[in-house]
Amino acid sequence: MDITKRQLSGKTRTEHDLLGNKEVPVEYYFGVQTMRALENFNISRVRLHFFPELIKALAMVKEAAACANRDLGLIDGHVAQAIIEACEEVRQGKFDEHFVVDMVQGGAGTSTNMNANEVIANRALEILGHQRGEYKYCHPNNDVNMSQSTNDAYPTAVKIALINSITKLQASLKWLVEAFHAKGAEFAHVIKMGRTQLQDAVPMTLGQEFEAYAANLAEEVERLEQNYKLFLEVNMGATAIGTGINADPDYSPLCIKYLREITGLPVVAATNMIEATNDTGAFVMNSSALKRLAVKLSKICNDLRLLSSGPRTGLNEINLPPMQPGSSIMPGKVNPVIPEVVNQVAFKVIGNDLTVTIAAEAGQLELNVMEPIIVHSLFESIDLLSNGMNTLRDRCVAGITANEEVCRRLVYNSIGLVTALNPYLGYETSTELAKTALETGKGIYDLVLEKKLMSKEELDNVLSPENMIKPRKFHRK
Amino acid sequence: MDITKRQLSGKTRTEHDLLGNKEVPVEYYFGVQTMRALENFNISRVRLHFFPELIKALAMVKEAAACANRDLGLIDGHVAQAIIEACEEVRQGKFDEHFVVDMVQGGAGTSTNMNANEVIANRALEILGHQRGEYKYCHPNNDVNMSQSTNDAYPTAVKIALINSITKLQASLKWLVEAFHAKGAEFAHVIKMGRTQLQDAVPMTLGQEFEAYAANLAEEVERLEQNYKLFLEVNMGATAIGTGINADPDYSPLCIKYLREITGLPVVAATNMIEATNDTGAFVMNSSALKRLAVKLSKICNDLRLLSSGPRTGLNEINLPPMQPGSSIMPGKVNPVIPEVVNQVAFKVIGNDLTVTIAAEAGQLELNVMEPIIVHSLFESIDLLSNGMNTLRDRCVAGITANEEVCRRLVYNSIGLVTALNPYLGYETSTELAKTALETGKGIYDLVLEKKLMSKEELDNVLSPENMIKPRKFHRK
Amino acid sequence: MDITKRQLSGKTRTEHDLLGNKEVPVEYYFGVQTMRALENFNISRVRLHFFPELIKALAMVKEAAACANRDLGLIDGHVAQAIIEACEEVRQGKFDEHFVVDMVQGGAGTSTNMNANEVIANRALEILGHQRGEYKYCHPNNDVNMSQSTNDAYPTAVKIALINSITKLQASLKWLVEAFHAKGAEFAHVIKMGRTQLQDAVPMTLGQEFEAYAANLAEEVERLEQNYKLFLEVNMGATAIGTGINADPDYSPLCIKYLREITGLPVVAATNMIEATNDTGAFVMNSSALKRLAVKLSKICNDLRLLSSGPRTGLNEINLPPMQPGSSIMPGKVNPVIPEVVNQVAFKVIGNDLTVTIAAEAGQLELNVMEPIIVHSLFESIDLLSNGMNTLRDRCVAGITANEEVCRRLVYNSIGLVTALNPYLGYETSTELAKTALETGKGIYDLVLEKKLMSKEELDNVLSPENMIKPRKFHRK
Amino acid sequence: MDITKRQLSGKTRTEHDLLGNKEVPVEYYFGVQTMRALENFNISRVRLHFFPELIKALAMVKEAAACANRDLGLIDGHVAQAIIEACEEVRQGKFDEHFVVDMVQGGAGTSTNMNANEVIANRALEILGHQRGEYKYCHPNNDVNMSQSTNDAYPTAVKIALINSITKLQASLKWLVEAFHAKGAEFAHVIKMGRTQLQDAVPMTLGQEFEAYAANLAEEVERLEQNYKLFLEVNMGATAIGTGINADPDYSPLCIKYLREITGLPVVAATNMIEATNDTGAFVMNSSALKRLAVKLSKICNDLRLLSSGPRTGLNEINLPPMQPGSSIMPGKVNPVIPEVVNQVAFKVIGNDLTVTIAAEAGQLELNVMEPIIVHSLFESIDLLSNGMNTLRDRCVAGITANEEVCRRLVYNSIGLVTALNPYLGYETSTELAKTALETGKGIYDLVLEKKLMSKEELDNVLSPENMIKPRKFHRK
Repeated sequence: MDITKRQLSGKTRTEHDLLGNKEVPVEYYFGVQTMRALENFNISRVRLHFFPELIKALAMVKEAAACANRDLGLIDGHVAQAIIEACEEVRQGKFDEHFVVDMVQGGAGTSTNMNANEVIANRALEILGHQRGEYKYCHPNNDVNMSQSTNDAYPTAVKIALINSITKLQASLKWLVEAFHAKGAEFAHVIKMGRTQLQDAVPMTLGQEFEAYAANLAEEVERLEQNYKLFLEVNMGATAIGTGINADPDYSPLCIKYLREITGLPVVAATNMIEATNDTGAFVMNSSALKRLAVKLSKICNDLRLLSSGPRTGLNEINLPPMQPGSSIMPGKVNPVIPEVVNQVAFKVIGNDLTVTIAAEAGQLELNVMEPIIVHSLFESIDLLSNGMNTLRDRCVAGITANEEVCRRLVYNSIGLVTALNPYLGYETSTELAKTALETGKGIYDLVLEKKLMSKEELDNVLSPENMIKPRKFHRK
Repeated sequence: MDITKRQLSGKTRTEHDLLGNKEVPVEYYFGVQTMRALENFNISRVRLHFFPELIKALAMVKEAAACANRDLGLIDGHVAQAIIEACEEVRQGKFDEHFVVDMVQGGAGTSTNMNANEVIANRALEILGHQRGEYKYCHPNNDVNMSQSTNDAYPTAVKIALINSITKLQASLKWLVEAFHAKGAEFAHVIKMGRTQLQDAVPMTLGQEFEAYAANLAEEVERLEQNYKLFLEVNMGATAIGTGINADPDYSPLCIKYLREITGLPVVAATNMIEATNDTGAFVMNSSALKRLAVKLSKICNDLRLLSSGPRTGLNEINLPPMQPGSSIMPGKVNPVIPEVVNQVAFKVIGNDLTVTIAAEAGQLELNVMEPIIVHSLFESIDLLSNGMNTLRDRCVAGITANEEVCRRLVYNSIGLVTALNPYLGYETSTELAKTALETGKGIYDLVLEKKLMSKEELDNVLSPENMIKPRKFHRK
Repeated sequence: MDITKRQLSGKTRTEHDLLGNKEVPVEYYFGVQTMRALENFNISRVRLHFFPELIKALAMVKEAAACANRDLGLIDGHVAQAIIEACEEVRQGKFDEHFVVDMVQGGAGTSTNMNANEVIANRALEILGHQRGEYKYCHPNNDVNMSQSTNDAYPTAVKIALINSITKLQASLKWLVEAFHAKGAEFAHVIKMGRTQLQDAVPMTLGQEFEAYAANLAEEVERLEQNYKLFLEVNMGATAIGTGINADPDYSPLCIKYLREITGLPVVAATNMIEATNDTGAFVMNSSALKRLAVKLSKICNDLRLLSSGPRTGLNEINLPPMQPGSSIMPGKVNPVIPEVVNQVAFKVIGNDLTVTIAAEAGQLELNVMEPIIVHSLFESIDLLSNGMNTLRDRCVAGITANEEVCRRLVYNSIGLVTALNPYLGYETSTELAKTALETGKGIYDLVLEKKLMSKEELDNVLSPENMIKPRKFHRK
Repeated sequence: MDITKRQLSGKTRTEHDLLGNKEVPVEYYFGVQTMRALENFNISRVRLHFFPELIKALAMVKEAAACANRDLGLIDGHVAQAIIEACEEVRQGKFDEHFVVDMVQGGAGTSTNMNANEVIANRALEILGHQRGEYKYCHPNNDVNMSQSTNDAYPTAVKIALINSITKLQASLKWLVEAFHAKGAEFAHVIKMGRTQLQDAVPMTLGQEFEAYAANLAEEVERLEQNYKLFLEVNMGATAIGTGINADPDYSPLCIKYLREITGLPVVAATNMIEATNDTGAFVMNSSALKRLAVKLSKICNDLRLLSSGPRTGLNEINLPPMQPGSSIMPGKVNPVIPEVVNQVAFKVIGNDLTVTIAAEAGQLELNVMEPIIVHSLFESIDLLSNGMNTLRDRCVAGITANEEVCRRLVYNSIGLVTALNPYLGYETSTELAKTALETGKGIYDLVLEKKLMSKEELDNVLSPENMIKPRKFHRK
């Protein structure tokens, strides 16, 4: 997957930058600056090609810039054309193995930007009939990066890649929501006790419980969307600090017009380019939205583990599908391993949100140089959530079954039933009943009949499931 | 402020609940359950009356419920009327000192809800011509809390109070934004060097820098609004777990209709009442929005401290108004104490956001019993941000002055100027110039003339402030 | 409690500082600089007198400095004596209401230090027979603050106050540990099922479970101690940045010698005074230790809520003492409000730890100006933990009772029993038994007899509590 | 590196577990349970072989258990011997590519434990002359996992691996400390201004500043050690929940004795095995220690970036070695990319600490099932810190140079000099001087001479570097 880990010919070409010469293996599409980045940043083991959406988005940005530069007559037409073709090949994933820099890097993304500039320049050179490294015909900085700075090209590419990644995440989310809906329908007739503060509360159906999970997660589809819209504001044309120095006044709108066409996304220019260049607020807000999703998933997984606890010494209302033997020492034990792993995914996403927060706060003056760790954390969180939700759906929710008889028995054995009698017997009598039930271990149903507080018919009517699980008309005594 | 800290008569009335009898000082409008809460929760020193908006919102909720119960014939008309009058007095702040429970409490807000029920019931009793404590005429639970549960009344009141508090916060924010705008205009002509990664970058104006702060914070007005809209979904009528047990089917819409009238806010019923009763997602998202504001304020305050660093050994581009002697040992030292305290406010808000996150994750099954700490943290954060922003505006931003000469000198002394020459001299020559400047200590301006690379006229034109701080047309060499 | 909130005479004296004159009410022992701090920092509502240990420690530091200055002949003997007497009165709590600055302040603690300097100077003036404000006879800066800087006096006082506060916290912790021990002994004979991953595991006693809580928390006594020892390194004599400028070379050891005597604590001088002046590592580590305690308390409270869940639809193994009616709508409901509030305390402490972390990271060069929010957060956390643990002990743990019969029934009804048979029947047969039990709903005990796998006598022996809850000799089949 | 990503023969063997049969490629040393784990947990892309220390430690634990079981006669001698030999091969790294399970997994580490059991069993089978998969001769559960449970073997292995990893981390840390010491010596003669609150304070040497960094980090060597000692308490013999069910009473001490020999570490048995089995406090504390190190590194890197800011518009006191061109648009720009990446490492470690905290809090009853994410986060943090510190040392600190002339000029141009005159001129006069200097732009030195406040000789003496950077004797005026 990564060309730096492959066996190569040993032949090199010589490249040059501000710090001097460097030998680059001929097979590499990237050049001297990516080489330096490889030496400087051996930090996280997570390389650019881990996130193909980001490679694609970098190529889209470079393509849009090339189109705009061409239209403005700033670059030779056939050089522009070669760059555009190279970008399209990159977008198809043909050069993923050449995107090798560590996602965690100093320099505010310069290494990522230069990795893209170099790969595209060298591929464009080939298209133009030249050798890789013959930069006088097509230069990573002068041509591929023309009218750009890392400070506009990198965050713009990141935002586009995040929108596309979150869109995929929404798909996973929707599938999970549907799985909960399906269970909601399947369990619509299963009466059970609701619990507040882990104490017996009042009856509901298991279907209502699963429908609530579906509704709870369904909101996140919209929440993700509302927040990723903040990414649609981009700063192409800002150049170094947002003043647009060395960029043509027409470049920014033209570049963004092309970017809209290429990405199919309604991106627009930021109103204040200086603000847009140093601000990381959109990352913070999106990380928060991912965190909220994580919090909800974790709560639901906690519930699934509680409801399936047992089989004999827990609540035992539902069964999760067994995925693997649970214990090397306890025969027959099966554990809720899937919700457990999703809980852990959630904890990591919450940790990543903190990393994003601290990195966002660390911006100084005209730039936030900590963007790479923000970017790394967001892509990691999206990846984890996506894997976690797919796993949760396929290996857990879809196979959940109800222990109907257990659920029903707990309702009719429960002291919480007394709440339903409250409007008929009054709070005082009800409290008295509850106390007696607790002390004697008897059931509310039997006690009411025993004390002749209501007729069996009346009682059965009040305690019929359909009457307990929704509001109903009644007259005060 | 707090009646429990006042000297009282020593006379008591006897009240009763599930756990037995209790003597209550006659002066207290609250009763036995608030008394128990006072004993149980001596935790945070932060009592309900710290946040008058919450007291007001509790009274609004109780008033709306009383109206709905009255219309449905569930409560005697003149009792309802007395409750409504009592609620209006509470909303005017007349009984603030009787709202005494610790904001940090077990029981998912039951103590807060009962504190409100008891104060309102006792005041209604007086209005009806009875003694406090004569609950047979108007009962905290049976009458004031009718058709409600803590699980719907408490979060609904909290949400209304948060909307109203955040609306005030927005006002503070807008004033701060205006102060930055005013400085943006005042400093529009001050040319200075922009810095990326704390290294000399390219020129801009100090006005642009302050306008960027204004733009940066102005976005938060909308962000706060977009997020607090999530609070407009309330669950009145949900009762214990969202199934609406013991509530009339017409109660929920009627109560919410009255709540709209009383609050003036477009509140609506949640689509899924069970989900709405256990979900704390809206709190998480709003806490995130407060955190984002905090992160931005902290970044800006870091910048203000950097830009005003010195006077001799720092950047010294701006002066903050002196607020207090800075040192007992160093004569004449004045420190940036206002941005410093705002930084610290931000750190506390970020910490509170974590508390909210963890508490939200801890919800179980049909309820999140950790809501009180969520509520406490959110109100504290709003309070801190509001105080912090008002202080920042009045005691710092409004009095900032520019050291124009320092700013200008840094520009013309800077190597970063070479970027503006890049389109005229090319990257190679420019890099060479930059190197020479760095090695010799000479200025770029002088070097260009010395090496006769451009005429003085041409050079002055390229380096004129108006040409460096925005995009411009130019032709490639 | 706070003199600024009292009705005063309206008479003032005029004081002066770097920024000009200011009228100070004659009743105030503090002066112009505290007045400015009151105006500048209206942030958190939490004032210095909330934490009397800190006031005491400030007075101890000032007293030690006065002794050292006197011995070195730097200050007039009877002025030194008056300062020392004033410090002793302050340590007795006589002037608490005059310590009024907001705990959250800019200036790295200057306002707190000056509040102490001013109160002590004015009281010393009275002792010397002068009027408050006649600073030529005893000056807050020149005399009370002599040889000091906020940058050494403030953190030193804070560290001493934290040691003393954590010592008290340890006492609360020990009492709580003892309460768990007592329950461990009380429940030593109650056999119950252990659960891993909320699934039936193997038998244990309820006593073992409570002993484990005791052991778990007992470790924290040592952990707190090990970490607060980091506070014993102080930087008195460092003055502004740790170089000791303007301090006599003999001052530092002398001052610290007096500080040892006055505090009774084995404080020592930091090895590297410059490092000690800007480092906040000791605060970070202590906050971590408080967080660890919070995490453990929260886990234990989660367990108590789980074990007491029910009464009919939960685990119902133990009963927590009822503290207040649990619901306005559900008669007879009693909730685990005490563990719930302790969970919330824990979440706040975890949030505060984050605040401390971020503030520690924000130090710059020779000072960390964010110390006040670190200090505020630590004292708040200690306060919350102390209140939380006392509450947990008195209102919950001490009154817990066991449902022995429920515990026992769950063991003998459990499939987990099969693990104990594993060494006798082998993993294959045991797994088969477990499966049959799960499918048929039968008990393991009955199935073994039914299938004649063991004799009743043999089985009873293997399944006797004393044989299941600890290691035992056996021979492989 | 990972056998699951290699081209294989396509031949399989059939294995069996509680959930049924499964085909396993013949080349795999692992078996059916690892296969299930691979299917269940496609979560993080981070597999067990990323952390070879953990593989080694798992083999050490298995070896110790085999020795103990052998001595107790629980296992056939030559089977034990084969297991021991297999463990030794695993410890040499020969089977790393077969340790393939995702580090993030449900089941509390069961998959990691079974991956180890299976690889060791299959290798032992080969040693015994059998085929892989012929488990009747040596079984992953019955033999390799004998007397163990995941709940004791997994955390014990993790703790040993963490100790060994942190020991390596200490080595990196010590090298970095030495690099700072070397610079401290090199810069001992460079006089510069210290800054507090980014404002001019008093003089110091650049050597003192770098020595303070060395001292600051040197403390962490001990801090790491003190905290990882908590890992020396292990729970081998606890089996499922700490009661030691199905383990021989002599097994625990014997196993731990062997573990001491094999690891060379003074591991001991936990006092309370039940507590030790569910507690994750040692992980929390060690994560805190890693976080503290991260906080300190981040602060130091912030300083390095500040001190090297410029070259013309910043502080410019030091030069960091250039590592890569800093900008595609700004010629000659070089950025502090190494400190920047270390800052980001720190932010990730802080985020990971939060993940650990939340996971620790989520333990329930007799087990904390969230251990895998704790383990993953700790190993990731250690890896990042180690890479970050090595990079910081080699690519930054070792090559730092001082701009002596800039440093010196800032001192003598500074208003802060006045502090040194304070003892001679008094606070009033000094403050007046500072004001005049600020208003006129003149230097303190010139003003003193101009106003004839001191003779040149006297002044030069007071302001000589050696007199300003440490305490000195003087007499009050």
